[in-house]
Amino acid sequence: MKSRSVFGKIGPVLVTVTAFLGMVLGSSLSAKADSEPGKSEKPNIVVIFCDDLGYGDLGVFGHPTIRTPNLDRLAREGQKWTQFYAAASVCTPSRAALLTGRLPIRSGLAGHPRVLFQWSAGGIPEQEVTMAEALKEVGYSTACIGKWHLGHLNQYLPTNNGFDYYYGIPYSNDMRVDPDMPVADDIRFRKGMTLEKMRDKENQKGGWVPLYRNEKVIEYPANQATLIRRYTQEATDFIKESQEDPFLLYFPHTFPHIPLYASEKFRGTSERGLYGDVIEELDWSVGRVVETLKKEGIAKNTLLFFTSDNGPWLVMDQNGGSSGLLRNGKGTTWEGGMREPTIAWWPGRIEPGVVTGMGSTMDLYVTALKLAGADIPEDRAIDGYDLRPVLFGEGESPRDEMFYYRGDELYAVRHGDYKAHFITQGVYGEGPDKQRHDPPLLYQLGHDPSERFNIAEDHPEVIEEIRGLVEEHRKTLEPVENQLKKRQ
Amino acid sequence: MKSRSVFGKIGPVLVTVTAFLGMVLGSSLSAKADSEPGKSEKPNIVVIFCDDLGYGDLGVFGHPTIRTPNLDRLAREGQKWTQFYAAASVCTPSRAALLTGRLPIRSGLAGHPRVLFQWSAGGIPEQEVTMAEALKEVGYSTACIGKWHLGHLNQYLPTNNGFDYYYGIPYSNDMRVDPDMPVADDIRFRKGMTLEKMRDKENQKGGWVPLYRNEKVIEYPANQATLIRRYTQEATDFIKESQEDPFLLYFPHTFPHIPLYASEKFRGTSERGLYGDVIEELDWSVGRVVETLKKEGIAKNTLLFFTSDNGPWLVMDQNGGSSGLLRNGKGTTWEGGMREPTIAWWPGRIEPGVVTGMGSTMDLYVTALKLAGADIPEDRAIDGYDLRPVLFGEGESPRDEMFYYRGDELYAVRHGDYKAHFITQGVYGEGPDKQRHDPPLLYQLGHDPSERFNIAEDHPEVIEEIRGLVEEHRKTLEPVENQLKKRQ
Repeated sequence: MKSRSVFGKIGPVLVTVTAFLGMVLGSSLSAKADSEPGKSEKPNIVVIFCDDLGYGDLGVFGHPTIRTPNLDRLAREGQKWTQFYAAASVCTPSRAALLTGRLPIRSGLAGHPRVLFQWSAGGIPEQEVTMAEALKEVGYSTACIGKWHLGHLNQYLPTNNGFDYYYGIPYSNDMRVDPDMPVADDIRFRKGMTLEKMRDKENQKGGWVPLYRNEKVIEYPANQATLIRRYTQEATDFIKESQEDPFLLYFPHTFPHIPLYASEKFRGTSERGLYGDVIEELDWSVGRVVETLKKEGIAKNTLLFFTSDNGPWLVMDQNGGSSGLLRNGKGTTWEGGMREPTIAWWPGRIEPGVVTGMGSTMDLYVTALKLAGADIPEDRAIDGYDLRPVLFGEGESPRDEMFYYRGDELYAVRHGDYKAHFITQGVYGEGPDKQRHDPPLLYQLGHDPSERFNIAEDHPEVIEEIRGLVEEHRKTLEPVENQLKKRQ
Repeated sequence: MKSRSVFGKIGPVLVTVTAFLGMVLGSSLSAKADSEPGKSEKPNIVVIFCDDLGYGDLGVFGHPTIRTPNLDRLAREGQKWTQFYAAASVCTPSRAALLTGRLPIRSGLAGHPRVLFQWSAGGIPEQEVTMAEALKEVGYSTACIGKWHLGHLNQYLPTNNGFDYYYGIPYSNDMRVDPDMPVADDIRFRKGMTLEKMRDKENQKGGWVPLYRNEKVIEYPANQATLIRRYTQEATDFIKESQEDPFLLYFPHTFPHIPLYASEKFRGTSERGLYGDVIEELDWSVGRVVETLKKEGIAKNTLLFFTSDNGPWLVMDQNGGSSGLLRNGKGTTWEGGMREPTIAWWPGRIEPGVVTGMGSTMDLYVTALKLAGADIPEDRAIDGYDLRPVLFGEGESPRDEMFYYRGDELYAVRHGDYKAHFITQGVYGEGPDKQRHDPPLLYQLGHDPSERFNIAEDHPEVIEEIRGLVEEHRKTLEPVENQLKKRQ
């Protein structure tokens, strides 16, 4: 974001006034409803975002042998969201949606190929207002620790999109290095590796991915076995150092995307095998973040959201996760592809319980901005909703629909409890092939979360309603440049 | 049980001595390990046993829209068992195993047809020592509230098998009446129904099942919509009235076996539809039992176990449950058929947590008898294990194997983390047909709870070990009369 003109004109004024009021009134000024919070009340926002975690992979979401005591406890103390969606079933578009509050088709980050690669020249467009940019405007410190995957050329990196600090890998951990990457002076190489060799294609394997600090490669190939531990150290350091300003910690983990790596302490310890080792180390990491928030005395002023970018990569067999009772997984618009195991936590503030209302990663954008008193961009379509009423036990989820895109094509739509599939298709590379349905397949998800019983014949009126919704939705779409196709 | 000779000879002496010690030492004498508890320390035992509940049907086991706050809380306060098995995948044999601690093939209650019917003349054999009979021997009050299904002729009824009191239906709620049933003087009939009509086949529909008190029909057809509520009233009344002696409350619910009925208060309230209404009323019932135990001040002296008789009846479509991430359901020897959502609760005594060790309903028999200081019959094969070390956080589960019978045929065996399927077959009436496997299919359940990846080729040594186990097991089997075939 290079210009403030995207904000509503009175935005900055309001911020100033409420900051003043906040100082005068102190804690009596609440952040509820539509009042703008004073600066002192701006909560910290922590978003922990896994990669390819399945709906059924946490203890509290029903896995029998993966142990996640930290997440189970957060779910107990906070809210377990059982119908929370990513906005895409693969990495890049899902991340774009979370950080912009918009369906990825609006930012050009959905289409073919599915995601960004090491040869890509595209990334998150300059005109998008990321969550970090918006929160920075109202005084937040911001860090991104983990996997970015919204463009690795300089202008697309986190530090050029609202984050003060970045530490992590620029795309998926099974990708190769881009030979043109800027490299730090003190880059660490694996034994025998040199800058020259690094840039030679012969020395690039899948999973030999670079590790960045801010805008430069600091390690090649990244030692993935210690990534969770190092990310966690970086994240907790950031929390400890961010005591003056409110902060946004965007913590998109590299795992359980394959190749799987767990640190020595966790390797070989889970009853679920290596995949379980990784999830249990991620759970440990969550525990460390929470412990740090508590030790620093700021847990009560911090909203933590835990979720994932898409469903489990089922074709990876035992190295992929489980979508529990949901159908299919990553890459598809069945529930297993986009519904995520989600937990919201904010001790003393959140109304504990199970939330069956719909939510989406795009809603985190709006919710975070509202909580921070930041302005929601008014010059564009925003697909997120404000989830504060649900978090605070004051109302139902405002979200009543979900659009399931595969690439840039709308495959399915959920409206209320009903989901219509206009197109279905199996996992890429595995099938079944793309198939159009007219009338669409219709499932009532509350009754039938596994999408087993097509009830289209019984509910033509629901299908008509959904068709109307699609028509309205299409009107809001504008042509944008496809960022995924652009090659270096 | 008509004779005490089945008990080990020194049993009664030990009980007397420890009862004396118990009086002298009071609470300092613990019920741990192999010491026999004094009478004052004998805990109450409550076994809540659902009918056709799926592994994935509770909130704490991952269902997204069925709300089970009471069970979720029990799982938090107690132990959530994630690898706990019924000993059969259909009603009658599963119940026989729970009450005898023995594989149902040993009591003649496994074979063809699958279960007992209204025309059956068989039932639980006299020589079996039920949990109720054994506990009664050491001073327990005993009640069975709910569905029996171990024979409806007089000699097979609960009151002739160790229970002081019985209230419930004699077999599944989709069965008809047996015209020869003894009827109470004050039997309640549905409007227009008479004794004569009741006994006329023309007036018997599926789901027109009789309601018993002790040994007589008191209502025909049973008003199933109020069954959960009435069972719960009977159960809590029994708890309140059992203040002098320790008690066994065996509470085998009629539901969610179809036809489904929920009371007016619950009908139409669940996001999961009627099936959800029923589970949520069952959850309410559990809450009432717990509340009563607390109000009566005896929760700290009560072990409560919640589980089910077999997996979900998947062919019933939306009226059947979900086995979550497990494969298949009721009637099969896949995990979904026999692994049950299980919770153990005993405030202040049980070590809270998630238990991934194996357990079985047959183990409840041994565990209950050990806790009560009752003698385990020594003149027969007992298939249960003592789970006290796991309950009290003192050790691992002693169970290391599970035999999966379908009828009287051994289909699969689990040893440690590995399960070998020698025969597989789909749900009765739906297929796929019976298929023998040599080598058997082999799955590592901790890694692969959904039984997706056959690893037989990689582990011939595991298969050999399991074959040895089968051989040993077969030596323990003795020919018995098939109780299921016997017709009136």
